[in-house]
Amino acid sequence: MPDTYTSVPNAVPTAVLDAIHRAVGDKGFVVDEREMEPHVVEWRDNYRGRAAAVVRPASTEEVAAVVRICAEAGVPIVPQGGMTGLVGAGIPHEHGGEIVLSLRRMNRILEVNPTAYTMTVEAGAVLKTIQDEAAAHDRLFPLSLAAEGSCTIGGNLSTNAGGVQVLHYGNARSLVLGLEAVLPDGRVWNGLRALKKDNTGYDLKHLFMGAEGTLGVITKAVLKLFPRPKDVATAWLAVRNPAAAVELLSRAHAASEDNVTSCELMGRLGIDLVLSHIPGSVDPLAERHDWYVLLEWSSTRPAPAHGGGMLAKMEAFLGDAMEAGLVFDAVLAQSSAQAQAFWKIRESHSEAQKLEGPSIKHDISVPVHRIPEFVDQGIAAMKAVMPDLRPVPFGHVGDGNLHFNAQSPTGMDKAAFYARRDDINHAVHDLVRSFGGSISAEHGIGRFKLEELERYRGPVELDAMRAIKRALDPRNIMNPGKVVRV
Amino acid sequence: MPDTYTSVPNAVPTAVLDAIHRAVGDKGFVVDEREMEPHVVEWRDNYRGRAAAVVRPASTEEVAAVVRICAEAGVPIVPQGGMTGLVGAGIPHEHGGEIVLSLRRMNRILEVNPTAYTMTVEAGAVLKTIQDEAAAHDRLFPLSLAAEGSCTIGGNLSTNAGGVQVLHYGNARSLVLGLEAVLPDGRVWNGLRALKKDNTGYDLKHLFMGAEGTLGVITKAVLKLFPRPKDVATAWLAVRNPAAAVELLSRAHAASEDNVTSCELMGRLGIDLVLSHIPGSVDPLAERHDWYVLLEWSSTRPAPAHGGGMLAKMEAFLGDAMEAGLVFDAVLAQSSAQAQAFWKIRESHSEAQKLEGPSIKHDISVPVHRIPEFVDQGIAAMKAVMPDLRPVPFGHVGDGNLHFNAQSPTGMDKAAFYARRDDINHAVHDLVRSFGGSISAEHGIGRFKLEELERYRGPVELDAMRAIKRALDPRNIMNPGKVVRV
Repeated sequence: MPDTYTSVPNAVPTAVLDAIHRAVGDKGFVVDEREMEPHVVEWRDNYRGRAAAVVRPASTEEVAAVVRICAEAGVPIVPQGGMTGLVGAGIPHEHGGEIVLSLRRMNRILEVNPTAYTMTVEAGAVLKTIQDEAAAHDRLFPLSLAAEGSCTIGGNLSTNAGGVQVLHYGNARSLVLGLEAVLPDGRVWNGLRALKKDNTGYDLKHLFMGAEGTLGVITKAVLKLFPRPKDVATAWLAVRNPAAAVELLSRAHAASEDNVTSCELMGRLGIDLVLSHIPGSVDPLAERHDWYVLLEWSSTRPAPAHGGGMLAKMEAFLGDAMEAGLVFDAVLAQSSAQAQAFWKIRESHSEAQKLEGPSIKHDISVPVHRIPEFVDQGIAAMKAVMPDLRPVPFGHVGDGNLHFNAQSPTGMDKAAFYARRDDINHAVHDLVRSFGGSISAEHGIGRFKLEELERYRGPVELDAMRAIKRALDPRNIMNPGKVVRV
Repeated sequence: MPDTYTSVPNAVPTAVLDAIHRAVGDKGFVVDEREMEPHVVEWRDNYRGRAAAVVRPASTEEVAAVVRICAEAGVPIVPQGGMTGLVGAGIPHEHGGEIVLSLRRMNRILEVNPTAYTMTVEAGAVLKTIQDEAAAHDRLFPLSLAAEGSCTIGGNLSTNAGGVQVLHYGNARSLVLGLEAVLPDGRVWNGLRALKKDNTGYDLKHLFMGAEGTLGVITKAVLKLFPRPKDVATAWLAVRNPAAAVELLSRAHAASEDNVTSCELMGRLGIDLVLSHIPGSVDPLAERHDWYVLLEWSSTRPAPAHGGGMLAKMEAFLGDAMEAGLVFDAVLAQSSAQAQAFWKIRESHSEAQKLEGPSIKHDISVPVHRIPEFVDQGIAAMKAVMPDLRPVPFGHVGDGNLHFNAQSPTGMDKAAFYARRDDINHAVHDLVRSFGGSISAEHGIGRFKLEELERYRGPVELDAMRAIKRALDPRNIMNPGKVVRV
């Protein structure tokens, strides 16, 4: 398989860098190695790249100018957001012949229209800022994930991010009405339309979302807002097993009147890792159990003054679920602080895994009703490769999406563990294939899963992707060597 | 602008037709002019095409074989579903050098999984059959439109159909988990994945949906099912004006607990046309009004035995709305027969317009909150071209989507009316552009709006579409001359 990104020149001509410098000014141009470092190292240190420059444009026009210069000179560009991605899509390669294009200076909220339930933002706006802005207008922007304090909306859209509310509101691509993007030739596509329906030709919006910057640079977006939940119930449950979690969710849809906004499954080891590594975390339940669910229901109607709101409904529901043997024990959050403490446990899983030591991660999805089977067979498949490996499955059970992770055996040497990485990956991903599943449910492909994608997707699909990539980026300058190799 | 479809040879070589005949057998091969006629004439008689053959494959393998033969010989293919489209996408050109590929024999429901809320179907399955099959499993497939008795799901997906429940469930593309399609080189893309989340590269699914058969032939789909509504309230309202309709909808979301499934606006002239042309139709209200809304709320919970269900909630809501002066009069359906009678009035608008005589149609969308402004200015703009023209605006107000139609002035000669078609179209579409709207909200582009699209979309967007078309269909054999000219 030819690998175009290794054949780019490893030095960008000074004249090109000067032209870029002039286009973005001093504030937008970084070549000092130390200042560039945070832009070229992946947060888990899986990749350390190099860049000829880190370019930080302040406007779409500046992005377009930079891309035009690079297109003419054939200089590859790595678009970059908040750098919280998990597949290395925003990290430059090691050869140093690329420029990093950071969108973080373009972080403005351009318009909020609560009546129309829309918000227009620049790509570098931080997700949390967008959530807060929506809340200030009594609206909800429902995209929510552990990295929300630092990830940017441009990155969220480029990777079609998922998170903990996909179940109710859909993934990132469902939350967008319109986009503006700079194409690989430096022209600006203005698709910033605030329309619910628009059947005028091929849907470019959906093509840019999920392309991880390989087809162009998303510069602005019109986002959908929703009514803000006024009555939220959050519970921490010990459940019998993953099958009980799926059954519980199925019943919860009706019981909550289709108001289940989150349903997260966690195994005991993940909880143990959080309790031992994350200061201030406390097990919500007195006894130990094997499986847990974090369940949240939200209504846009305020809770009635004299009872009958979400909390009461969930309490009755959980009573029934305990009687049915699905749930062993449960605690309902009595305050938003308590709810946040539950969420902290769920959201700290990645951090705790990192602090515990080496791990191998899989972001898989299968049809929802097959999750229980998959968990059993997936654990067996990993242990067949490495009997002492410690499985840490957790995630969005209602989306059929689990982070099917493996912690290295206690005391095992890091190199010895990672030496088996491919075998463990293939054991899990072969099983995913046999379930008709996906080897990347929400994290994307980037650089990390490029070879896995080539292994698991058929030639017809890969050829179609390559044809699209070549058509829109004939010089292969937009984030080359990510998602699909041409 | 070069127009490729006029340059194809107007005779398909006999050897090619023979090869196709062998691939699909006698049952799948029609060359008799009379038998072909229903496949080459548009239902409103806007287009009368010709075809070298009508090919009716019985399986994906047969579709693939036919496409391979055509790809090799450079013979253009017009994929065709139920032929209810409104932009001529499924009708062959006049030159006769194309084959029609009708999917109607591939009409099987392949699998229903009520637990997983999925159904797998062949492209030629009729929408109504799919709805009924879902209902038989106590599930809902929510795509619903006037042509549902004869349109096919392949056509629905290829055009990203809209309809009367988009407000709650989204348009056709939102209702699909996976697709199978035959690409322009005859290879089969198997994307029949029943996954809620799958971020593995470019989203081909969303590219094929809305491409109107110009990038390949959709052959199968995995559809999303929903809980079947158990408690439905339907009301026919006379409202003050379009602004009142928008305000009413905004209030209805909260009052119904986000259970508004339809909100259709109609003007008086449309009602009059239905009453005079559609046998058995009756005005639900005694007095005449200028504007009407058909409002439907649906809950997946059965109505409580002792009141408090949707009907009661809607009644209280309408009482408030009348007090607020938004609604002048209202009637709540007391039976499903009565609800169907209301729907019949709405769904008969197109038929009534056809029976009344010549009309010019626009399928526009603008941001929802700007609908009232648009209606006022749009009517004025059309009347500025032709003072006696009779506006018939109606449609999906909650989607910002109106069928902004014009009936010819009473007694005006058909030719004289159509002579002004371009002027009227431009008056409306120029206004749409100034509102940041779409000139085709749900009907697509096909052949009918090809020139309008070229007029209203910028070169960047058109170039990107052309690049994609050329990349996936380099010989331009898939439905050439539709959507985008290359």
